[in-house]
Amino acid sequence: MASGADYSILFERVKIGPVTARNRFYQVPHCNGMGYVRPRAEAAMRGMKAEGGWAVIANQETEIHPTSDLSPFAEGRLWDARDIPGLRLMTDAVHDHGGLAAVELAHNGHHAPNHLTRAPVLGASELSLDVAFPKQARAMDKADIKALRAWHKAAAIRARDAGFDIIYVYAGHHMTIAQHFLLPQFNDRMDEYGGTLENRVRLTRELLEDTREVVGDTCGIAMRLAVDEMRGPDGMQAAEEGRAVVEMLAELPDLWDVNVADWANDSVTSRFQQAEGYQNDYISFVKQVTTKPVVAVGRIGSPDMMASMVRKGIVDFIGAARPSISDPFLPKKIEEGRIEEIRECIGCNICVSADSLSVPIRCTQNPTMGEEWRRGWHPEKIAPKGSEEAALVVGAGPAGLECAMQLARRGYDVTLAEAGPEMGGRVLAESGLPGLGAWKRVADHRLYDLSQRGNVQMFTGSALGAEEVLELGIPNVFIATGSHWRADGRGRNTLGGLETDGSLRVLTPDDIMAGKRPPAGPVMIYDDDQAYLAGVIAELLAASHPVVFVTPANMVSPFTELTLEQHRIQRRLIELDVEIITHHSLAALKATPQIACSYTGRLRDIACASVVLVTERVRETALYDSLRAQDHGLRTLSLIGDAANPGMIADAVYEGHRAARNFERDPAEVDAEFFRREMTALSD
Amino acid sequence: MASGADYSILFERVKIGPVTARNRFYQVPHCNGMGYVRPRAEAAMRGMKAEGGWAVIANQETEIHPTSDLSPFAEGRLWDARDIPGLRLMTDAVHDHGGLAAVELAHNGHHAPNHLTRAPVLGASELSLDVAFPKQARAMDKADIKALRAWHKAAAIRARDAGFDIIYVYAGHHMTIAQHFLLPQFNDRMDEYGGTLENRVRLTRELLEDTREVVGDTCGIAMRLAVDEMRGPDGMQAAEEGRAVVEMLAELPDLWDVNVADWANDSVTSRFQQAEGYQNDYISFVKQVTTKPVVAVGRIGSPDMMASMVRKGIVDFIGAARPSISDPFLPKKIEEGRIEEIRECIGCNICVSADSLSVPIRCTQNPTMGEEWRRGWHPEKIAPKGSEEAALVVGAGPAGLECAMQLARRGYDVTLAEAGPEMGGRVLAESGLPGLGAWKRVADHRLYDLSQRGNVQMFTGSALGAEEVLELGIPNVFIATGSHWRADGRGRNTLGGLETDGSLRVLTPDDIMAGKRPPAGPVMIYDDDQAYLAGVIAELLAASHPVVFVTPANMVSPFTELTLEQHRIQRRLIELDVEIITHHSLAALKATPQIACSYTGRLRDIACASVVLVTERVRETALYDSLRAQDHGLRTLSLIGDAANPGMIADAVYEGHRAARNFERDPAEVDAEFFRREMTALSD
Repeated sequence: MASGADYSILFERVKIGPVTARNRFYQVPHCNGMGYVRPRAEAAMRGMKAEGGWAVIANQETEIHPTSDLSPFAEGRLWDARDIPGLRLMTDAVHDHGGLAAVELAHNGHHAPNHLTRAPVLGASELSLDVAFPKQARAMDKADIKALRAWHKAAAIRARDAGFDIIYVYAGHHMTIAQHFLLPQFNDRMDEYGGTLENRVRLTRELLEDTREVVGDTCGIAMRLAVDEMRGPDGMQAAEEGRAVVEMLAELPDLWDVNVADWANDSVTSRFQQAEGYQNDYISFVKQVTTKPVVAVGRIGSPDMMASMVRKGIVDFIGAARPSISDPFLPKKIEEGRIEEIRECIGCNICVSADSLSVPIRCTQNPTMGEEWRRGWHPEKIAPKGSEEAALVVGAGPAGLECAMQLARRGYDVTLAEAGPEMGGRVLAESGLPGLGAWKRVADHRLYDLSQRGNVQMFTGSALGAEEVLELGIPNVFIATGSHWRADGRGRNTLGGLETDGSLRVLTPDDIMAGKRPPAGPVMIYDDDQAYLAGVIAELLAASHPVVFVTPANMVSPFTELTLEQHRIQRRLIELDVEIITHHSLAALKATPQIACSYTGRLRDIACASVVLVTERVRETALYDSLRAQDHGLRTLSLIGDAANPGMIADAVYEGHRAARNFERDPAEVDAEFFRREMTALSD
Repeated sequence: MASGADYSILFERVKIGPVTARNRFYQVPHCNGMGYVRPRAEAAMRGMKAEGGWAVIANQETEIHPTSDLSPFAEGRLWDARDIPGLRLMTDAVHDHGGLAAVELAHNGHHAPNHLTRAPVLGASELSLDVAFPKQARAMDKADIKALRAWHKAAAIRARDAGFDIIYVYAGHHMTIAQHFLLPQFNDRMDEYGGTLENRVRLTRELLEDTREVVGDTCGIAMRLAVDEMRGPDGMQAAEEGRAVVEMLAELPDLWDVNVADWANDSVTSRFQQAEGYQNDYISFVKQVTTKPVVAVGRIGSPDMMASMVRKGIVDFIGAARPSISDPFLPKKIEEGRIEEIRECIGCNICVSADSLSVPIRCTQNPTMGEEWRRGWHPEKIAPKGSEEAALVVGAGPAGLECAMQLARRGYDVTLAEAGPEMGGRVLAESGLPGLGAWKRVADHRLYDLSQRGNVQMFTGSALGAEEVLELGIPNVFIATGSHWRADGRGRNTLGGLETDGSLRVLTPDDIMAGKRPPAGPVMIYDDDQAYLAGVIAELLAASHPVVFVTPANMVSPFTELTLEQHRIQRRLIELDVEIITHHSLAALKATPQIACSYTGRLRDIACASVVLVTERVRETALYDSLRAQDHGLRTLSLIGDAANPGMIADAVYEGHRAARNFERDPAEVDAEFFRREMTALSD
């Protein structure tokens, strides 16, 4: 549908039991690295979604009892009344902006290691913890189940007292005990909670009934269920038991929130799943077997798809986690016909990585995400300019583009100069690699925004030297010249770099992204970066070359465990017949390169015709250094992005944003923001 | 030296600049998973050491600035004045018991990812973060160095204001920027901070001078230096630059705290280093080149060794981290001639694992460690008994032994019945495996204690059935019957277990520990436990059999990354020619077993004559179940240790302790302790 399309269906009110959603935009529960550890940040972040027009805003999995202790992860917590005030901050923030607040109550069974509480681990059956830690759950007996139900009821009452409008029963992601009871792989019980599906559903049914009993008069009861494990006949399937479960419980909850398991399947990255709405095939049956409203997800970003899903009767609510992170104002922008202003999710899962690290959420597309409380950043608002008039931004990669866009939004006359033939920098380069196409949206969004403004001039093919910069006469200069990849092997595990006799053809990721290809014959890819790039390049070159992938790590692309991709990446390389050699670092760069075992130092020759070194980057600071070395007369000169500190694309966007926001601010104030954090109370 | 030896030299007072230590017992800085996240727990834990007689009690590495943000790890933090009150809790607790409090100020350079603050990463040079995360440090320029010095000074002043008596400059463990500047591998600077040793020492010298300038009048200045990197000529060596650094700075600090790098070398486990005082060869030169007092470590546990080290002029202070965790009252026990009461460290590094998980410290030998604040546990005090008179403990493994000992200390008449021929349970069995001999101390300590008491009866060879238990007429029964290893392959990655046609000889860890050995020919060890045991068994069997080690993990014994051992374990297995197959799980148990790739599912045959399955344990609950199934008439019946929840030895000891402490307590009070935690403040 073209612009001017009718999205009014998305703004219909929908009842969820005793409460009513103002529209069909529904932020499903998602982790954010804040939770009970950072309740003020949590409140501000969720409140921003309400301000952006989401009808329902959920928190994240919320521990109901000390036997479900996920420490050190920063999730929700509602063990007792002491947790109510922290959560009240969130419900107040959501209500202030007209949203409904939902809480995802959870008992995590053998997924909860109870490292802090040292409480017994409880399981649907006798089960090892699902992480590599030597601790086992005991199968819950009847008294345990009775206690669990009592804890869940008490937590529901506390949740209502904290102001939540919608209360979840959660059976998903392989992470909660309600789902563990449902699945035969985790449930080998011989009693009335095991065996037949009717029996395995019993606990979930009881939790729904219990919750309704205690809070159903004032709160909507949501059932979050993974209807398919994505394991084919080895697991629950949507067409089989997944459907049967929904049929059995059809009218018990006030809302069905359905998805697929596990988390890596629910939140698959764009690298491995380009399509939006990719869960529709699994969840579309649900509305056929229940009269209750249904919400589902699948990185749904386009309003046309959203409206179509509602019209076709697939869902009642458009569920979102990642699209709501990338653009908290997505509903408002659709409502106001500002479709082209939406910051579309690129599906990189950097948001997930932060939760995995127990630090506040961040987003590649939306640099304000996670900074609502700490820095007071608003995704749609920025202070107007001060007394300065003009700024020059050199380099149109992610840092330069974001900096230029935000400076322009503040009202400065912005000149953006890019040395290359096209804007985008590393985003443009990396998005040309297999699977990373969606990443180009980082550039596209900003270029579109800049193109709409009258106060911006953009130049490509403009490699500027110091003299040229000064000749432009623009008093404020932001240098965002990026970085390039080293060709000498230096990196984490080879601090000194390596001598090369020149007999081996050496390429870098920059060469590959510029279209250069290794000579015929085997190519060794050496990955000391250990993020994603070497794995992507291996995938690319495996189509044309025999590839040997060498890494000092114990697996391919270990960083991508944080983005839920590692398993898929290594599987793909194995399937492409890439030879994978882990725990080895590069020892000699010669005609036949040598690698050394990280454990023993034993050397090994690798017969290959060339090597791609993915190790470390060198900052491009020539222009900055040249300006600094002279009496440049500029009012301000700043170095930002990878040129200042090589990092992720998300870091470059963030630094570009920060530089624009802080321009003309008191440096002491700017500095003080680094110190802002939530702290532990010293008394009860 | 026999009992009655003269340890008075250990109780001499020693001056540290302007402050005076009451004796020579010095708890060097060590992490504890509490820090700024749990300041009340930190205070109680450090205060307990002071009560136990330590003269100096240090905290842990303490971030001085948001550019040294170690989130999510729970270390010390002293960014600004807001951190003072939390640290004051600790200094007050230490002072209340006559100790001196020390703070280990740290800037972590490229070891600090700054995930929370998103501040620029600063490095001695251009360096990748030392973890697998795509972020790089920028080489500090002169302005950065000036700022760093200012931050360190300001932090020293805040530390003094928080009540600390001793303030550290920290250059060790490869974790701090002062050490990064010292080492050419991290420092390729061309200015006066790089190149010659004199230049590389400059920053450390300045930090020492700065610290003295601002707080030297009232606080002792400690220099913590790793004098040897344990990398031979590839790194700093004690006899070379290590010595030269101490010579250059000899009289600048008031105290030298010297050790070796990195952390895994400083805190090596008993599995890989049996000897106490193992750092003496590296640090003994220090006292020859400085007149200042010297402290050093090396898991020094015996008072004879301690006295000898002082007499020989190797050290002035006996440094300890782990021995002070295992027994906070070590100094008092020596002073009072209660040598045999010392709970000696077993060198298992479970203490380290907790810090790595960002949860409060725990200890295998000392179950009260980390529970001083939360549960109010004291390592030497326990409430006397209530109205009950007698208790029976069935099973003399770690849970049963600890439970019996604490019940006896409370004054109950205790009967301890062990089915086997010897006391000790799994501790006895595991301590017979290569490298784990020191673990036997867990049993030895408790057996000695029990043997000294008049209210304890102990029986071995006493396998009790329910009727026999009831015939004893003891009204309170604690069942600690442990667990055994499964033989069907079931575990984390094989939830259903596997059919076997009986053609393959299958052994379990219990078989191996009982002395059984596989038949001649290749043996496959399958490790789905992923802790330490399979690696130890591989080491044992490699002496007599060709060994194939198969694990679903990406490395051998991944859990042991938390105990700083993984690298050594995998190296040892490689050196023993063990064939290691990672990321494969067991698929079929037949004459030629099959394994499946965790990524692709591809099957592979393993030619072997037998398999040792290290997968999961089964709780031994027959006696407990049998008693529960009848009208037993007991006043209390409890299931504890691995029989209740299989876990680590530390967990079993802990549960035995908890059961004994909570006996005859109000169950509601007992339950409430699971909920106790420190919480985030909701306002500044």
